Amino acid sequence: MKIRLGIIGLGTVGSGVLDLLEQHKAFFRDSLGFEFELMGICSRSQARLDRFAAKAPFTTRNPLELTARPDVDVILELAGGEDAPRAWVESAFANGKHVITANKALLAKHGKELFPLAEKSGTFLLFEAAVGGGIPIIRTLQEAFIANDINGLACIINGTCNYILTEMTSKQLPFKTALKQAQELGYAEADPAFDIEGTDSAHKVALLASLCYGKYVDFANMTVEGITTISDVDIAMAEEMGFAIKLLGIVSQDRSGNIQANVYPALLDKKHQLATVDGVLNAIYLKTSAVGAILLTGAGAGKLPTASSVVSDLVSLARQLATGNPKAQPMGFFSSRNQAELVPIDELETEFYLRLTAVDKPGVLAKVTTVLGEEGISIRALVQKPEHDPEHVPVIFLTHATKNSNVRKALKRIDAMDIIQAPTQVLRFYR
Amino acid sequence: MKIRLGIIGLGTVGSGVLDLLEQHKAFFRDSLGFEFELMGICSRSQARLDRFAAKAPFTTRNPLELTARPDVDVILELAGGEDAPRAWVESAFANGKHVITANKALLAKHGKELFPLAEKSGTFLLFEAAVGGGIPIIRTLQEAFIANDINGLACIINGTCNYILTEMTSKQLPFKTALKQAQELGYAEADPAFDIEGTDSAHKVALLASLCYGKYVDFANMTVEGITTISDVDIAMAEEMGFAIKLLGIVSQDRSGNIQANVYPALLDKKHQLATVDGVLNAIYLKTSAVGAILLTGAGAGKLPTASSVVSDLVSLARQLATGNPKAQPMGFFSSRNQAELVPIDELETEFYLRLTAVDKPGVLAKVTTVLGEEGISIRALVQKPEHDPEHVPVIFLTHATKNSNVRKALKRIDAMDIIQAPTQVLRFYR
Repeated sequence: MKIRLGIIGLGTVGSGVLDLLEQHKAFFRDSLGFEFELMGICSRSQARLDRFAAKAPFTTRNPLELTARPDVDVILELAGGEDAPRAWVESAFANGKHVITANKALLAKHGKELFPLAEKSGTFLLFEAAVGGGIPIIRTLQEAFIANDINGLACIINGTCNYILTEMTSKQLPFKTALKQAQELGYAEADPAFDIEGTDSAHKVALLASLCYGKYVDFANMTVEGITTISDVDIAMAEEMGFAIKLLGIVSQDRSGNIQANVYPALLDKKHQLATVDGVLNAIYLKTSAVGAILLTGAGAGKLPTASSVVSDLVSLARQLATGNPKAQPMGFFSSRNQAELVPIDELETEFYLRLTAVDKPGVLAKVTTVLGEEGISIRALVQKPEHDPEHVPVIFLTHATKNSNVRKALKRIDAMDIIQAPTQVLRFYR
Repeated sequence: MKIRLGIIGLGTVGSGVLDLLEQHKAFFRDSLGFEFELMGICSRSQARLDRFAAKAPFTTRNPLELTARPDVDVILELAGGEDAPRAWVESAFANGKHVITANKALLAKHGKELFPLAEKSGTFLLFEAAVGGGIPIIRTLQEAFIANDINGLACIINGTCNYILTEMTSKQLPFKTALKQAQELGYAEADPAFDIEGTDSAHKVALLASLCYGKYVDFANMTVEGITTISDVDIAMAEEMGFAIKLLGIVSQDRSGNIQANVYPALLDKKHQLATVDGVLNAIYLKTSAVGAILLTGAGAGKLPTASSVVSDLVSLARQLATGNPKAQPMGFFSSRNQAELVPIDELETEFYLRLTAVDKPGVLAKVTTVLGEEGISIRALVQKPEHDPEHVPVIFLTHATKNSNVRKALKRIDAMDIIQAPTQVLRFYR
């Protein structure tokens, strides 16, 4: 069976997809019966179009010219962006074409219109590559665990952040040095904000949360904290106490059906399976009703891992097209009419790590502990480590599980005291 | 869409499947559009039939009565055994029914006839539950990594063995005590041979190797070693040197296309991701051409994890049936006409751990090292640890990578010496 492709975007992922289609061409044709024929390519860059021009009969710098072509069955949207690609996908659907995308920002922002539209148009919108790079988490949630309720999900879903935190931990680097190193190695962008502030993680976590609970989760309603405030002191303190600091996406559902979906750096026990996931690796840890706990770890980004997931979607689609009556996974639930109530982080109970920067005077602890007590926060441990910063002795409080609003209120009072020299560092535990 | 089921086997997995179908009935019907209707059940045990009789209009103790019924679309073969179920599956195919099985022994032994027969009959033979319990390794290999060559696979695929080795390690138990404990907890059978001698692992590894390389791998040609000879001394020595001992299935392909597929206990660096997979957990570690290294960890057995995979197969099948023109994954390669050449273990190069039990006399080491040298085996380290056994001081040699045949020949000579009091313990490293 012949399946005719149009590719929008000839950057890292696009060229990776072309490589894989070439490498496995004979296998796809002879063993699976699928011939993927490249009918058109589109790139903003004329240089890239020229470079790949020999591979396709049609080239254009205008995506809408490609999505309108009658000789294309499937559009691979591999260009990135948020608002522009929405129009391309809508055009593809209007022209009866299926779409495969690696674009989490697009889906997190416009999936609520695009998924229902795909369902209405009878077209596929596949996105395995949008979350976790080469890790097959989308099909695992959609297919493998179809007979499971998801009791919780925690994930390390941004390789840039995980690389930076790993380097800070293993080499005792300050954040800025680790970030610079990541940029030099190509693991972080020149403008790294999108990664290190947690936005990229939030896009992916919103998609995962939506799939876990069959509702549309808007990332704009999530609490999203990045890793920019993590200091080498925090990493060292956590290490000494037996914890790793990881940027986690954390998803669960409470008994009344409300969803918790947030992204923040968290201390987790070094014995937890996620704590050993280092470097640019991603990992998704799922607690399920039938299978129990399961962990998937692998490359969460990069040319070929991402391209591998795009091509896996293409083959799955081909297998459905071969039936002559293709049936997509039902994704119509991902719609603004079916939006999840998110539990505000203020209402969540977590254990806390609080690092105070206080003047070295008698009575400081008494003042701070008084406020914590008045706000109903129970202290599990108190550590002072002058060796980490002899001038501003860090004072660390570990709390028992307490409502986030309690801590917010307490810190508002504590940080206003004149004995406190800098805003208190607040980290949560993941258990 | 209504899909009519017949279940053979009402033991742990069968009753788990009934539980999950019940639990998710509304979701399958309302969200996916599938109604699974139980038309018949079959069990050797009249007591079990009686227990579940209210759930199905037809009950029988004869599987062939169920496979012949015209009102059944899909047979779930969840009874176990090897030769008897082959006849049931053949009968199901002859009657145009699809089959879902959790039975690795059946597939390892008779898959070479059953997979081609399914292809010829235009029926499905699905088996996600046969390997790794709730871990979605079959669909990961068949679908997610379809655009990858598999460069290697290592797995912990028998929970009984992993539990025993974990207990031996964490509590310094002798093998027999850990085995007894596993039996008391229901993690090991009363007759544990099938698990602890590696046979169960070999069945699963043969299936995985076949899927990795698109050829039929006969488990009878694999080298299969269990964990019965592992002593607490070996575990303690490995620990001290920074290694864990795990029963691994190890699969790879050499440049000439020949496949290596074996099961043996191996020392692996404690920092390897597989080394931290403890207790009854299973894990599959894949080295792939596009995605790189990936690890899947989870419950490899048990009622609901296994049932979860059976039901996931059922939903995948339903999705294909809903097209009216279902297309199975091509499994015709799994045939005796397409049998893989396995590289004999003698020809593999591995590093070795050799534990000699020698009399405590001068000159022993000279004699042993002479033989090792003559057989071309280069020694990486030598350790004597009298504290582990003051009477028979264990002498441990670690070797550089060397052909397995060299070690076999050397040990034949060494173990024949009168200074050697017991057969030398031979373990390999996994790197």
